[in-house]
Amino acid sequence: MSLAVIMGDDRGSRLARLLKERLPSEAVTLWPGIGNPEGVRFAVVWKHPARALDALTGLEAVMSYGAGVDFLLADPVLRDIPVGRLVDPDLGQQIAGYVVAHVTALARDFAGLAVDQRAGQWRAGSRLVRPKVGILGLGSVGRAVAVACRTLGYDVAAWTRRPRDGEIRCRHGRPGLLALATESDFLVSTLPATGETRELIDRSVFAAMRPDATIINVGRGECLVEDDLLTALDRGNLGRAVLDVFATEPLPDGHPFWSHPRVTVTPHVAGLTDPLRAADIVARNYRHFIATGELPDAVNRAAGY
Amino acid sequence: MSLAVIMGDDRGSRLARLLKERLPSEAVTLWPGIGNPEGVRFAVVWKHPARALDALTGLEAVMSYGAGVDFLLADPVLRDIPVGRLVDPDLGQQIAGYVVAHVTALARDFAGLAVDQRAGQWRAGSRLVRPKVGILGLGSVGRAVAVACRTLGYDVAAWTRRPRDGEIRCRHGRPGLLALATESDFLVSTLPATGETRELIDRSVFAAMRPDATIINVGRGECLVEDDLLTALDRGNLGRAVLDVFATEPLPDGHPFWSHPRVTVTPHVAGLTDPLRAADIVARNYRHFIATGELPDAVNRAAGY
Repeated sequence: MSLAVIMGDDRGSRLARLLKERLPSEAVTLWPGIGNPEGVRFAVVWKHPARALDALTGLEAVMSYGAGVDFLLADPVLRDIPVGRLVDPDLGQQIAGYVVAHVTALARDFAGLAVDQRAGQWRAGSRLVRPKVGILGLGSVGRAVAVACRTLGYDVAAWTRRPRDGEIRCRHGRPGLLALATESDFLVSTLPATGETRELIDRSVFAAMRPDATIINVGRGECLVEDDLLTALDRGNLGRAVLDVFATEPLPDGHPFWSHPRVTVTPHVAGLTDPLRAADIVARNYRHFIATGELPDAVNRAAGY
Repeated sequence: MSLAVIMGDDRGSRLARLLKERLPSEAVTLWPGIGNPEGVRFAVVWKHPARALDALTGLEAVMSYGAGVDFLLADPVLRDIPVGRLVDPDLGQQIAGYVVAHVTALARDFAGLAVDQRAGQWRAGSRLVRPKVGILGLGSVGRAVAVACRTLGYDVAAWTRRPRDGEIRCRHGRPGLLALATESDFLVSTLPATGETRELIDRSVFAAMRPDATIINVGRGECLVEDDLLTALDRGNLGRAVLDVFATEPLPDGHPFWSHPRVTVTPHVAGLTDPLRAADIVARNYRHFIATGELPDAVNRAAGY
């Protein structure tokens, strides 16, 4: 019986070491060197190579080493066991910081102020700004973005899959999405990639936006139709895009986003998993699962998040 | 009996018009065309020319058209009447937005990410950032900055004139100021200009800072010794300065700040007074004073704010 770490990037050995420190009496094993795969009951996984989980025939639960679980739900061998997410409130705060920094810098024209400085020109401000921020999705990340924007006095509305009551005005359905796109200075997607959200942000959403509005994507690249965005930017449907996530990551060499004058590209850094905090959460969830049979922060397979 | 608007800039005629709309039964008069100066009981003033108030011999109360009152307390003719400030919670939120946008962009190296984008280089992030923000002053602006920073998960401490209890860890006194300077990644002054704060942020404060730390001034330019800052930047005592306020405004042509590679200059725009909201507040305070004899948001002359 053991806990396996299966990572598609180079973070596995550190995580395995941190888990061994936190779970000294458990066997922690690191893919691809798993000696006894059928003895693995619990796995923590990030974007694993295809078929990497096939040999884990005794697997009872799996958790993502991140907020997204799309790569786990897409793996047919995991059809019958609970799939959990790494929920760290810190991640939402980080993403909220990324979003409000971009919103504020654009709304208040920090770039124009820098041009004035280089010209030695004192142009006292007169234009007051209270940007309207429309947030797609109100999960832990969307809520953190909403709270941060409201703390700064920004006007916040949201779009959610189902109608909901609460402090934040929410729209839903396709008409609600288009209405939010029309009224927002900044449209911010925090959506996960699910059957319902894939390619949701397409030419009709961009066409509904205002010519000076900005789309910000900190959710999943699959939710946004990248070719439609390029066409819409070139037609002047919207003014700018700030993208931290992409349909293919790393963003391929030569992709038009890299050099587009009205696209900001960042390499999926809006929220970074803190290895120490993450190891604490994985260890806690593992212990809880072993003791109770219940996996914390398990996703709803039907909803996809 | 009348209310006078006395402005050292070009905003007076609009304010006078807005006040006439809000106080239709009162005589609102605009400097320098005040017909009957001895009949003026109440004045709203911003950085008035010297001696502009001397003829208002019947003045009973005066309020600043901003958060700062230093120019009013410096006028000897106002020695015996209450002096009020314009307190608009919106101003604190605006300044908080300016501060968190700069802190986040610097802490997370948005400039470096832009360089990577221009080079077409995907450099996935690994460095986690929870900046330590030290706030000088916890008035309405300092508190708004603290709340915004905490909402984003930043580590907040403050320096206040007197010891105080509260959620935010506060230091005080000269040793407390130097300790806060040493421990902060970002040292943010929201201080008003008073006898105690003038030239408070000097070479010893800069010498206490870390070589990668940033000073941000959104309080008053008079609180910071500009020559000391230039020397300290050039010596490498601190890494960067973000300055929205200056000892002389507009910042004079040819001032070294304009072209310094590690100084960001903005033209006193971190918080902009909204003319409609401000007129509402002035009219409300005027009515309250006429009805009760009490001036809202009056300053403590001994403290200077």
